[in-house]
Amino acid sequence: MLATGIDDAASVVQQIGEMIGVVAFAASGALAAVRRNLDIVGIVFLAVSTALGGGVIRDVLAGNTPPTAFTDFTLIAAASATGLVIFFWHPPARLTHWPLEVTDAIGLGLFVVTGTAVGYDWGVSAPSAALLGLTTGVGGGIIRDVLSGRVPAILRTDEPLYAIPAFCGAVLTATLMHFDWYRAWIGLLCALAVIAFRLLALRYRWHGPRPYYVSRDE
Amino acid sequence: MLATGIDDAASVVQQIGEMIGVVAFAASGALAAVRRNLDIVGIVFLAVSTALGGGVIRDVLAGNTPPTAFTDFTLIAAASATGLVIFFWHPPARLTHWPLEVTDAIGLGLFVVTGTAVGYDWGVSAPSAALLGLTTGVGGGIIRDVLSGRVPAILRTDEPLYAIPAFCGAVLTATLMHFDWYRAWIGLLCALAVIAFRLLALRYRWHGPRPYYVSRDE
Amino acid sequence: MLATGIDDAASVVQQIGEMIGVVAFAASGALAAVRRNLDIVGIVFLAVSTALGGGVIRDVLAGNTPPTAFTDFTLIAAASATGLVIFFWHPPARLTHWPLEVTDAIGLGLFVVTGTAVGYDWGVSAPSAALLGLTTGVGGGIIRDVLSGRVPAILRTDEPLYAIPAFCGAVLTATLMHFDWYRAWIGLLCALAVIAFRLLALRYRWHGPRPYYVSRDE
Repeated sequence: MLATGIDDAASVVQQIGEMIGVVAFAASGALAAVRRNLDIVGIVFLAVSTALGGGVIRDVLAGNTPPTAFTDFTLIAAASATGLVIFFWHPPARLTHWPLEVTDAIGLGLFVVTGTAVGYDWGVSAPSAALLGLTTGVGGGIIRDVLSGRVPAILRTDEPLYAIPAFCGAVLTATLMHFDWYRAWIGLLCALAVIAFRLLALRYRWHGPRPYYVSRDE
Repeated sequence: MLATGIDDAASVVQQIGEMIGVVAFAASGALAAVRRNLDIVGIVFLAVSTALGGGVIRDVLAGNTPPTAFTDFTLIAAASATGLVIFFWHPPARLTHWPLEVTDAIGLGLFVVTGTAVGYDWGVSAPSAALLGLTTGVGGGIIRDVLSGRVPAILRTDEPLYAIPAFCGAVLTATLMHFDWYRAWIGLLCALAVIAFRLLALRYRWHGPRPYYVSRDE
Repeated sequence: MLATGIDDAASVVQQIGEMIGVVAFAASGALAAVRRNLDIVGIVFLAVSTALGGGVIRDVLAGNTPPTAFTDFTLIAAASATGLVIFFWHPPARLTHWPLEVTDAIGLGLFVVTGTAVGYDWGVSAPSAALLGLTTGVGGGIIRDVLSGRVPAILRTDEPLYAIPAFCGAVLTATLMHFDWYRAWIGLLCALAVIAFRLLALRYRWHGPRPYYVSRDE
């Protein structure tokens, strides 16, 4: 009974978390589209691809087909609506930088945690669940960037830490689930930690070390 | 018996439609390769990836593995043969623009309709089938463009309407199937409507609305 | 008993071959990352994506989910370790050209052969197995190049033969398996033949024929 209660609460938070993640990633996709001066169709398409891409990859990798995004239309409706809101709000392209980074960080944090939790619930081992969560989190952003002809953030020179916050969040969530310490609000805290880590990395320009000869040249 | 007759006819038209779609997309891929001055191997490779990519994505999303393209070799043979024909016809790169657009539109129209019909026949709901059809239709072109280092048409600034004709075709086909009004020749008409819509959008440069500040700048 | 012995030996060689392929592709990904001046995280991420990407695509296409790369962590550990070794060895970016080409060729040869063998063992037909092997072999490199914002080698103008060696290796392996002539050491010879073919093509700049009007211009 207790377990069920936890499951239910976890499931609700899971759904809310996924929904916020979808909206955040959709906003980041729509903002990237505005930046590239696309019309309303391009904005909605990039919003939907970014928001649902990570989850579709996760579902395909886990053999959960057709993916949730193709059967549960609340997600695609939320993503399309977000794209339309960005379209009507019409921010000037030069003002899209920070909103794009912040929404991307929020989507990353929530998807890494919910992706790991969903993976673990499907019965894969904790490290597999962490990998699935990591893929879910970074997948949407990679799809957005590849479709817009940009190198993904995770592989951009001079981009502050992106994969490390995601990796830490996935490992932390998987560890908590493995030892059965995972609770709904703890998952939310994990997501917040990932978001804060990524935004601090952006703000203070934290970088990983580069190969020695490069530092020497600088 | 009637239902079977319809199924058979639908299935034949389905197969013919898919074959024409494969040949058209293969031609568009091969023309894109000619434009980039690739050799015969690149031409055939891009022809095959473009022609089969959408269907492979559809099959993977629907859990139909291994995808038809990996087991039914008529499709890959048709795509390779189309690539070879384009190679021996050797159009000058500057003449590839309209043939590329026209073959791409034909492939788009046929794949959207057959993709939706295949999806619906697998038992997913009508909206899911429309989404699968849309993904099938735009998937091949996206693969072609991403592999050639180009931004996909669907996300190119100043590209006339691309996703909207595909979306209308998918919704129309799914609606027809849902109310059991779908017949073989109606599917063909849907595909023709999508093709005509896309070509008219290209010819008269129909665009979706862009965010307000952009129009203001013009 | 004999069959079992052969199976066991084949399976060991299969595993060793896959491991060498993973390390080689990981090195090629890490070198591509060094060339783009990425930090340690980017290097490891590109190493892992390149090394495991082909196998993940193969597994998803064959319906073997979750893919081996998400459940067997020796592969990901080997790929990450290779990335770290390249990071600490820190070759100057200008010296990464040949190592990148050679490790890519080694990965290609081994993945084409092991991919075909794995596919055939799953019970698909010989031509399907060859296609799966080809996809596995070229998939990792395509992921590496698309993620780094580069046109894949297979579609680069002026790139010497890449797909042809892979194609020959896949067809040869599938033929050998079909007639039950495949042995562990023969698979290794096939992989070596692919590697040698690709490296010779690179060294002597073998190209496929291009459309006639292009040759005329030269």
